[in-house]
Amino acid sequence: MNANLISYVPNLRVLDCTLRDGGLVNDSKFSDDFAKALYQADLKAGVDYMEFGYKCDKKIFSPDRYGKWKFCDEEDIRAIVGDNDTDLKISVMADVGRCDYKKDIIPKADSVIDTIRVATYVNAIPTAIDMVEDAKNKGYEATVNIMAVSKVNGEDLKNSLELLGQSSVDVIYLVDSFGSFYPEQIRRLTDQYMEVADKYGKKVGIHAHNNQQLAFANTIEAMNKGVGATYLDATVNGLGRGAGNCHLEGLLSFLRNPKYKTIPILKFVENYILPLREQGLTWGYDIPYLLTGQLNAHPSFAIKFIKEGRKDYYNFFHELVDDTL
Amino acid sequence: MNANLISYVPNLRVLDCTLRDGGLVNDSKFSDDFAKALYQADLKAGVDYMEFGYKCDKKIFSPDRYGKWKFCDEEDIRAIVGDNDTDLKISVMADVGRCDYKKDIIPKADSVIDTIRVATYVNAIPTAIDMVEDAKNKGYEATVNIMAVSKVNGEDLKNSLELLGQSSVDVIYLVDSFGSFYPEQIRRLTDQYMEVADKYGKKVGIHAHNNQQLAFANTIEAMNKGVGATYLDATVNGLGRGAGNCHLEGLLSFLRNPKYKTIPILKFVENYILPLREQGLTWGYDIPYLLTGQLNAHPSFAIKFIKEGRKDYYNFFHELVDDTL
Repeated sequence: MNANLISYVPNLRVLDCTLRDGGLVNDSKFSDDFAKALYQADLKAGVDYMEFGYKCDKKIFSPDRYGKWKFCDEEDIRAIVGDNDTDLKISVMADVGRCDYKKDIIPKADSVIDTIRVATYVNAIPTAIDMVEDAKNKGYEATVNIMAVSKVNGEDLKNSLELLGQSSVDVIYLVDSFGSFYPEQIRRLTDQYMEVADKYGKKVGIHAHNNQQLAFANTIEAMNKGVGATYLDATVNGLGRGAGNCHLEGLLSFLRNPKYKTIPILKFVENYILPLREQGLTWGYDIPYLLTGQLNAHPSFAIKFIKEGRKDYYNFFHELVDDTL
Repeated sequence: MNANLISYVPNLRVLDCTLRDGGLVNDSKFSDDFAKALYQADLKAGVDYMEFGYKCDKKIFSPDRYGKWKFCDEEDIRAIVGDNDTDLKISVMADVGRCDYKKDIIPKADSVIDTIRVATYVNAIPTAIDMVEDAKNKGYEATVNIMAVSKVNGEDLKNSLELLGQSSVDVIYLVDSFGSFYPEQIRRLTDQYMEVADKYGKKVGIHAHNNQQLAFANTIEAMNKGVGATYLDATVNGLGRGAGNCHLEGLLSFLRNPKYKTIPILKFVENYILPLREQGLTWGYDIPYLLTGQLNAHPSFAIKFIKEGRKDYYNFFHELVDDTL
C-alpha cells in the first residue's frame, strides 16, 4: 500500500516506551500511580504496545539504586495491569550483557509480558540472537533493536541484518541512538532493512531520538507512507534521556488512524508529566504550540495560554476547536 | 542538480531572521550590542542574508512600545553595519497593511538594505504586488511571503502564485505560519511553487515554524536535495515566537557547504542567546544534545555537560571532537 496523509494504514503498531526510555531520566523510579495512569491512557489512546522497562540483572544493577521498572518483575507489572485482559501488548527491553535472560525471563505461559525487545550493539548480534531464540522458545514475540547504527560500517550492518533475517526474530528495529540521522538517511536505511525483512518475512521498526529535532520527522520518514517501518516507537511528551524521543501525541495525531486517540495522552501529560517537569526532570519541548500546530490555529492562542499560567491542555484543546475550527 | 547529503549545492541562500522573527518575542527590543554581534556571527558563518526586522508604520506601531527593529530606520541599521561592505545581504520585512512603503522605503541608492520581503495573506496579494513593484522600481531585490498557506484553498493559492509569477518578484516564499505541515505536504507544496517559479524564472524560499518539531525537517524537505527551495529561513537557536523557527545552527551543519560555518553561531548562542533565556524569554530546545547528535556522540556527554552547569558550548564542541571522533 502506498498511503498518503488521509489514508488509513491498518498494519501500523505504535509502541509507547515512556516508562522504559523515560526511566533513563529518573533511574526508572516511576510510581505505581504513574504507571497505572499511563497504562489507562495507552489503552484509551489505542496504543498497541506499552513498554514497562528493562529486564535488568539485579546482580549488575542494584535495586537499592534503581526503581522497579529497571527489572520489571512479573508481580510488579501485574500490580499495574492484572492479567492485562486487553488488546494492549506489554513489552520489556532486555539489553545484551545486562540481562540474565535464561533465568529472569520466565515462560510466556506464566507471564503477562507479550514481547521481549532485545537491545544490542552490532558486535553482540550472536548473543542477541540467542536471546531471541530463548524468548521465542518460551513463547514470546521478539524484536531486536540494533543500537548505534550511525557508527556501524556498511558490511557489519549488512551481515547483521542477514543473521537476524535468518533468526526467529519478529521485528528488526532501526535505532538512531544518537539522534544523528537526517530523513534521507533514514529513508535509505529503512529501505535496506525492508529488503531483508521482506526476504525473510520480518517486520521493521523505527526508534528515533530528538537531538536534531528530527525524531518525529524521521519516524514519519521511516514509515514511508505505509510501505516502510510499521513498528513506531514514541514516548509521551518525548520523555526520554537527553533530547528525548519522538513525541507520542504528535505521532498519534499524524497517523489519522481511527484507532488512535490523542486526548487521553494529553490528559496524561497534564496530570502526570507536568509534575515531573516541576520536580526538575528536564527534556524537550512544550504542548500548547503543538496543539495550535495540529489544529492549524495561530500561535497567539498558545502564547496567551502559557502567559496566563494555565496548564489545562484538555480544556485548551476544546477551546481551540471551538474558537478556530 | 539532484544532490545527496555529501553534495555541495552552491545555489542555496540562507537567511537569518533572528532579529525579525525573534523580535516577536521581545517587541523587537534587541540592543545594538546584540545586533552587532549577530551581524558579525552571520558574516563569519557565511550566512547569505540577515534580516534586521520590520519596516512598520510608526503611525500604527508606537516607537514608545516597540524597539527600533520594528521600524528599521536607515540610520539604525547603519549604526550596526556601516555601509555593509560585505557579501552579507540585508533584508527587512514589510507587512501588507502595516507599512507605509511609498514613504518609508527609500530608494535603494540611499539605503544599505538589499532586499524587501513583503509578507501578505492571500487576500492581499494585489497590494503585495504593488509593494513588490514599488521596491523593484526603487532598486531592491523583492520577495513575497504568502502567510498562513495551510488555511488557503487550492484555487486561491494557484491564482496567487500565477499573479506573483507575472510580477517582478524575485523569490516566492512557502510559509508554514502555524507550523502545521508535515514533510510530505511541504514536498507537494514546494513542487507546486517550483512549477510556477520555473515557468516565470523566479526562485522559491521556505520559512518553517517548529510547532510540531518539524521546522528543520520541513526546511530540508523543501530543499529537496537541491532541486526545490533555495532560500532557507532560520533563526539562531530557533529564536522566534511560540515554538520558534528552524534552528540556524542545525541547518548550516546539515548543508555541508564549505561556505557555511556553525561555530560562530554557537558562540553567539553562548554569549547572547543564553542571557535572553536567563532574562525569561522562552521558546524551543537546547544546544548540547544537538551537538552530540551532529557529532554522532553519545548523549551522556551532553547530559554530563548540562549536569555540571556548564554553558561553554564552544569548549564543549572541541571536547567532543577530541573525545569522540
